[in-house]
Amino acid sequence: MKKLVIFGVGLIGGSLALALKRTSPSLHIVGVGRSGDNMQKAIDLGVINEAEPDPIAAIAGADVVVIATPVAQTPIILKLIENHLEAGTVVTDAGSTKGDVIACAKEILGSKFRQFVAGHPIAGAEKSGVTAARADLFDNKNVVLTPAQETDLQALATISQLWQIAGARVTEMSAEEHDAIFAAVSHMPHLLAFALVDDLASRSNAKQLFSFAAGGFRDFSRIAASSPEMWRDISIANRDALLSEISAYQIEMALLKSLLENNDAAGLQALFERASEARRNWGNQHITNSDKQ
Amino acid sequence: MKKLVIFGVGLIGGSLALALKRTSPSLHIVGVGRSGDNMQKAIDLGVINEAEPDPIAAIAGADVVVIATPVAQTPIILKLIENHLEAGTVVTDAGSTKGDVIACAKEILGSKFRQFVAGHPIAGAEKSGVTAARADLFDNKNVVLTPAQETDLQALATISQLWQIAGARVTEMSAEEHDAIFAAVSHMPHLLAFALVDDLASRSNAKQLFSFAAGGFRDFSRIAASSPEMWRDISIANRDALLSEISAYQIEMALLKSLLENNDAAGLQALFERASEARRNWGNQHITNSDKQ
Repeated sequence: MKKLVIFGVGLIGGSLALALKRTSPSLHIVGVGRSGDNMQKAIDLGVINEAEPDPIAAIAGADVVVIATPVAQTPIILKLIENHLEAGTVVTDAGSTKGDVIACAKEILGSKFRQFVAGHPIAGAEKSGVTAARADLFDNKNVVLTPAQETDLQALATISQLWQIAGARVTEMSAEEHDAIFAAVSHMPHLLAFALVDDLASRSNAKQLFSFAAGGFRDFSRIAASSPEMWRDISIANRDALLSEISAYQIEMALLKSLLENNDAAGLQALFERASEARRNWGNQHITNSDKQ
Repeated sequence: MKKLVIFGVGLIGGSLALALKRTSPSLHIVGVGRSGDNMQKAIDLGVINEAEPDPIAAIAGADVVVIATPVAQTPIILKLIENHLEAGTVVTDAGSTKGDVIACAKEILGSKFRQFVAGHPIAGAEKSGVTAARADLFDNKNVVLTPAQETDLQALATISQLWQIAGARVTEMSAEEHDAIFAAVSHMPHLLAFALVDDLASRSNAKQLFSFAAGGFRDFSRIAASSPEMWRDISIANRDALLSEISAYQIEMALLKSLLENNDAAGLQALFERASEARRNWGNQHITNSDKQ
């Protein structure tokens, strides 16, 4: 691989560039972005070799094109480049949901859809922008690739290798499985945290309530400070899986409520024990895991 | 104040002792606990001056008795000391719920209930035991005192002053108001986190789910690793306020679900924006707040 093009040189795109440069210093990395200031910063920081504002000029002769912009930009970029995409170029993305990305890529790219490999690196989000980019962001982190039936196997191998060179552990699964898993372990925590904070903030004594909130609230609700636009898009994109998760959670809440109503101390303790044991086991296996999603 | 007796020399009791010693080095602090090893450690660490295994001998001539044991011990200790409690001694506790403590103290102490001041320091819980005790644990942290109608005003002033000397900000409110506030900002986050982890852990693909959980899940669910026994007791003790909170949350969940069902992107964004703004405002005011509850 000689030429890599990155649309959106922020935390994810910038960190991928830095990670690859560790072992492939001769790789020519071209950044495409709307902000000239940000592109200049990316050059100054040694993240990219070249900034090219014109997408079509940028992708000429590229081995790989990575779309690491906010997810709403993905279809716009695919439309811009589709007609000029060379047969030897593989395109990938880094969005948090995959079913929607595959559907739109299939529609936009047509016969070139086989050159597209949908991906999701599980890292980054606390800070954003190229100044937050780190060469080790993906080290030992999960990257999920969700090939479709049409996906070219060589294209898949190229993207898999790219992320492994960047330090990540690559897993392949269907887009449907990916979206179901992340609805459960990532999207639901966000929705539940948003819901509690919105509920509390809407009350007449909200100011008093927040003045007594402490460490438990802080950690639980940290993700409720996330970008509303990003989570609107993720929620709509992963709507079906999320609706199924919300239904499961409503059943769990009803169980908890009935244990309380019946003063069932043993039942409550059993529920808390199952959760506490599972969370402690998870924590013990993820002690050094400081990634955000 | 010359003599302070602490039942349960763990994180809370030990930190209170260390905090008071900063400005009152001559204060005589007596620890009462079941573990001889722990008491010896508390003496070696300079947390207490003396260990006295006999509760009745311990409280003789005491100005203040602090009950900082696990909350289930409080009625047992009150029963043990009630008959020997001198008129000049004030008793306080450090439990997370206050309505239940006041009800049991009233029943056990009878006419001596006026010497009891219910309290709740909002700090500590991540680590436990006397080795985790820190002199600055309560600095600028909230301590809520919930006097009853019968509470002696001088006794209230004594405990208020005690916590202020220990570095805390003291607020007085009714036990009912306290329990409603902490159901919302502390107990609900715990229950919601327990519920999600229990829901995920019970599934046939739990192992796979947890293997893809990352930073958002980690912070959201940290409190789900909390003590099942402690949270069983808190849930039962604060049952009424919690049931009302769960009902409010069920309404919020139903709203979220209907926004998703209707593909209402603007409505979802508005909900997320309200939460995100409230959480960011709270975070800005609590940047240095590293306490746990």
